Amino acid sequence: MTSASPLSATDTARRLREGTLTATAVMEACLERACEREPVLRAFAHLDPEAALAEARAADARAAAGAPLGPLHGLPLGVKDVLDVGGMPCGYGSPIWAGHVPRADAAGVALARAAGAVVMGKTVTTEFATRHPGPTTHPLNPAHTPGGSSSGSAAGVAAGLFPLAFGTQTAGSVLRPAAFCGIVGFMPTHASIHRAGMKVMSESLDTIGALARTVADCALLIGAVSGREMGNPETHPDRAPRLLLCLGPHADKAAPETLALMERAAEAASRAGARVTRGVLPPAVMAAAEAHPTVMNMESAQALAWELAHHRDRISAALLEKLEPALALPARALEEARAAFAAAQAAFPAAIAEYDAVLTPAAPGEAPEGIAWTGDPAFNLLWTALHAPAVSVPAGTGPHGLPLGVQIVAAPGRDREALCWAEWIRQAMA
Amino acid sequence: MTSASPLSATDTARRLREGTLTATAVMEACLERACEREPVLRAFAHLDPEAALAEARAADARAAAGAPLGPLHGLPLGVKDVLDVGGMPCGYGSPIWAGHVPRADAAGVALARAAGAVVMGKTVTTEFATRHPGPTTHPLNPAHTPGGSSSGSAAGVAAGLFPLAFGTQTAGSVLRPAAFCGIVGFMPTHASIHRAGMKVMSESLDTIGALARTVADCALLIGAVSGREMGNPETHPDRAPRLLLCLGPHADKAAPETLALMERAAEAASRAGARVTRGVLPPAVMAAAEAHPTVMNMESAQALAWELAHHRDRISAALLEKLEPALALPARALEEARAAFAAAQAAFPAAIAEYDAVLTPAAPGEAPEGIAWTGDPAFNLLWTALHAPAVSVPAGTGPHGLPLGVQIVAAPGRDREALCWAEWIRQAMA
Repeated sequence: MTSASPLSATDTARRLREGTLTATAVMEACLERACEREPVLRAFAHLDPEAALAEARAADARAAAGAPLGPLHGLPLGVKDVLDVGGMPCGYGSPIWAGHVPRADAAGVALARAAGAVVMGKTVTTEFATRHPGPTTHPLNPAHTPGGSSSGSAAGVAAGLFPLAFGTQTAGSVLRPAAFCGIVGFMPTHASIHRAGMKVMSESLDTIGALARTVADCALLIGAVSGREMGNPETHPDRAPRLLLCLGPHADKAAPETLALMERAAEAASRAGARVTRGVLPPAVMAAAEAHPTVMNMESAQALAWELAHHRDRISAALLEKLEPALALPARALEEARAAFAAAQAAFPAAIAEYDAVLTPAAPGEAPEGIAWTGDPAFNLLWTALHAPAVSVPAGTGPHGLPLGVQIVAAPGRDREALCWAEWIRQAMA
Repeated sequence: MTSASPLSATDTARRLREGTLTATAVMEACLERACEREPVLRAFAHLDPEAALAEARAADARAAAGAPLGPLHGLPLGVKDVLDVGGMPCGYGSPIWAGHVPRADAAGVALARAAGAVVMGKTVTTEFATRHPGPTTHPLNPAHTPGGSSSGSAAGVAAGLFPLAFGTQTAGSVLRPAAFCGIVGFMPTHASIHRAGMKVMSESLDTIGALARTVADCALLIGAVSGREMGNPETHPDRAPRLLLCLGPHADKAAPETLALMERAAEAASRAGARVTRGVLPPAVMAAAEAHPTVMNMESAQALAWELAHHRDRISAALLEKLEPALALPARALEEARAAFAAAQAAFPAAIAEYDAVLTPAAPGEAPEGIAWTGDPAFNLLWTALHAPAVSVPAGTGPHGLPLGVQIVAAPGRDREALCWAEWIRQAMA
């Protein structure tokens, strides 16, 4: 019953339902690993081992009493510290919110708990899920960043501290850290999970997503919480996909290892029967990338109106550098940028109608050295703006031996296909 | 310097800037009126007169120190109790949240304060801005409802307790109570004001709006908070409008006095030079009305996941009656309903391209008797789903001597036009 953490969430869930594993044993194994790794990893913003164990024991007691078990029964869950968990401190990665303890769970957290998940703790976020980093280090090399803003969720999953975690994405905050840490990140179609109880920055962009070690685990978490049918990504599809290989709006930011990775991905996919077409997206779609910073920064400046009015001195220079120019823009700039989003969102499904999915890098390259910068979301922000489901899967390593990832994107609503083809390309490249 | 409350917000703001009135005197007059009216009206969920006066004195001190004065300088503001005000209790109209005191202001509140507004107190909302009423009574006849869910904001403005208030609308919660209470309600284009710090129920629908005694006052509040150019609705336009007279999807719910009202509106508008065309909207647009309850109730059930899990016994029967069927629907139903919204939103601007605005009832009729039911949002929900700006203006009275209202709706983004033609029709009917 020990050392349960190497199992996938899906396998752990099966054994928990079969009764060959208890939620308490799973949590004990996770806590043991946290004990070993946390001094260097620093994935948790808040961890109360006794409380986590008590919640796991309660899950076991429900099972013993014959209660119906949800799809997440007994699975430890890391929750990014921009999502409320009732009774746990929630600091949003900002000193302004130190000591804040929300009364209620965020909607996504409450729904995960209703499905049986056991909240293990709160995971480190960058400041308000933006740029200023937290203390988390890379799980394979502490001299590197794990990526952000969902830093603790990605690092904690990769290190086996918990099998499932919530992240959030405004630009690239789920997909990028997943790629850096060698795990799977899944941003479902926008608005799949209600944001009540989240510190929302950009209403037009912010999307709650999943980090896990397998594609099926991501599907399990998001499917259970959203109620949407995610299928079983590990079921072998009866045909190979038609893929649009497209580097997106910031192709120039791809490191040499990423360009080589995409060649390997194209070859592996072709070898496995896929039709791989190299192409670009129409200007109306690409325009969303250009509008992205305006929407993100102007909406974030509105979201932080109270913090700006009362605690400007405790907002990082890195964030103020983005907010202050946004505050100087006329409201019309936001209206125009949102109109560009709407036009791009309307055009995207038709633009990829000939394909099952877009194949694109998950990040510019390996995780950068140092933890002062969590890396560039250049390969993620367009898909976030398009409200499209996106999955990043690990695909080998770069020159420093750190993970690389490829990303699969589908049209909004086609989460099931995105997950299926992401698992397919992962297997094809393995 | 006394009895300042009968002045409009716009006139009060001018006198405050000129120095012929102080914020303290304005607040004292409002508090005096609150003292007289509150025992029967019950517009406030929270009122601390000393704190309100202290905030008004601070505004006067800023003015005396020569600080730049914002457009809302010194104006008392009522804040619906689904929007956080830092340090004030915020109960969302639910016993579940009794004693909850948020640390920060909602974004809209922080922006209003940054523009100089003085928060007077929190106004009564129905339970979570849904159906179960609060204790507020109609300002002209306490045997009637003031409407909801922004009950306290509408009643308080009508009774002169404060010149400006925030409301929120998911179906008809700003426009309907404004019409019932004989004041002006303005729902700006969706997402004009960031919802950070709001108890959001339906992410697709919830819109923050304004209640005030004049159209110009609504424009003043929303313009100051959103930064969007709202123009001066009292400037006489150089031509009369082209109006589409359309009763909307629930024409059968219009009371005889409302049908008569719309005839009067059409006659008055034509007499004043408008081209009034009677017509209907295309089915793709009208479909949003049919999809509205699905989106509202399914998203609200997600928003209240924590309350449903832990405090179901303290949710009203009236709300559970809506949430429980929504919980039983498959996630696909929400996806389909949202797709209907998107199609309707895409079709609406073209559907009214020949017109400056839609002219439609603001409510089925007068405020219903009793305070157990806040009335029917049937004449508002379509426009909310279309994300369109809508303004209701008072237009005479019904058989019980209570106010009636007409509503002007424009295409999203055309808030300035909606305000301008609303003031135009109000004058034409006066």
